[in-house]
Amino acid sequence: MLSQAKIRFINQLSRKKIRYEEGCFIVEGNKGVKEGLEEGLTARELYVSDPSLIPFSGAEVITEKEMKKISQLTTPSDTLAVFDFPEIKDWQDADWVLALDEIQDPGNLGTIIRTADWFGFKHILCGQGTVDPFHPKVIQATMGSYARVQCHSIDLEACLQQQERTVVGADLEGVPLKNYDVPSKGVLVIGNEGRGLSSSVEKLLDTKVTIERGEGSKAESLNAAISTAVILHTISNRLSSQN
Amino acid sequence: MLSQAKIRFINQLSRKKIRYEEGCFIVEGNKGVKEGLEEGLTARELYVSDPSLIPFSGAEVITEKEMKKISQLTTPSDTLAVFDFPEIKDWQDADWVLALDEIQDPGNLGTIIRTADWFGFKHILCGQGTVDPFHPKVIQATMGSYARVQCHSIDLEACLQQQERTVVGADLEGVPLKNYDVPSKGVLVIGNEGRGLSSSVEKLLDTKVTIERGEGSKAESLNAAISTAVILHTISNRLSSQN
Repeated sequence: MLSQAKIRFINQLSRKKIRYEEGCFIVEGNKGVKEGLEEGLTARELYVSDPSLIPFSGAEVITEKEMKKISQLTTPSDTLAVFDFPEIKDWQDADWVLALDEIQDPGNLGTIIRTADWFGFKHILCGQGTVDPFHPKVIQATMGSYARVQCHSIDLEACLQQQERTVVGADLEGVPLKNYDVPSKGVLVIGNEGRGLSSSVEKLLDTKVTIERGEGSKAESLNAAISTAVILHTISNRLSSQN
Repeated sequence: MLSQAKIRFINQLSRKKIRYEEGCFIVEGNKGVKEGLEEGLTARELYVSDPSLIPFSGAEVITEKEMKKISQLTTPSDTLAVFDFPEIKDWQDADWVLALDEIQDPGNLGTIIRTADWFGFKHILCGQGTVDPFHPKVIQATMGSYARVQCHSIDLEACLQQQERTVVGADLEGVPLKNYDVPSKGVLVIGNEGRGLSSSVEKLLDTKVTIERGEGSKAESLNAAISTAVILHTISNRLSSQN
């Protein structure tokens, strides 16, 4: 049975401050929990409300009512884990990294993590003002990819200043993506959903790329996760054709 | 002043049945309303709570409290319009159209409409089971693009059966996108968020394309709007380089 103290502890993990004090975060759903375990994350707590469906060794079986008390979801799933923060891996060896300049929507960040995972980008640098990558809604939107892509909270300006890789930003006024000569190493910077790249970050770019509009299009902008996907796809494709 | 009958009428438009009976839908936000008017939509009702900001001729000025009563948003904006459904334009003349096979999330559909607008795709065929394109959350997520892209509710199977264009579906098992020879005319079909393409639709495809994973990627899937964007970008780029 779940103690009141446990319930309180898990509920408090919806707050960023507590997550960082405790060094852990919540993952809900069979698939997401499974992927965390497969990638070697340490489960501090592991609960299932339907033991027949989920053969996780070491899981504590709780009732659906208890699951509801610890779940962050409107419709709780049958699995919930509290994982320790993953061990920090060095991103400096990666050829390409993605950097986010104040992405604020948890759904967008989760989708960006999922997309980075698909295209083989293992590291995301999250500048100040970017939503916490361990926010429950972010984790949910990654569809399990949170376990394979590492997000690093950094000072984006300081990081870009020291950067030896080419730094390229997504912008409405840049080199058309089809004409962009993809270097073997780089940092792709994506700006805020509403304001785009901040001016202090823009100064540190080596180049800017633009996703070409279709003929006759009067659209003003693309969603941040959509822009990220289109550019990562282009980079990934060009790199694989260079090899 | 807003009458109780008006408030009730506008609130009822959150229901699909009422939207179709009345032939109208709600748009909120200065930008979205402006784009509707610019594209020639007829505003049956037009309200502003801050007349100094929004110089819409013919708008009725209401209080913020009244706006709150008719708004669908948690944080109401200062503009709300009830537009008549747009005049139906023929999609048969378009070279490429997008078709959706049970896209259920309003945010995804809105993002898909916004993305189609960016890449110059003017028509989307919405199969049964796809969320209503006039759903307030869909309209909100289009960021104004709802006014430039027309969604047609159709019987997808019947439509694909009669199709003379090449029909291509997005799938995990298909021709790698980079090897896909983009024809001058076609229909791109995107499947449901969880289940992908339905088997009845899959049978009607001429070909399937797959977005290549990056090297070493263990990701299982991409978000439906993300897949749509990456494929539309590729189609749009190839078409423009053929011209």
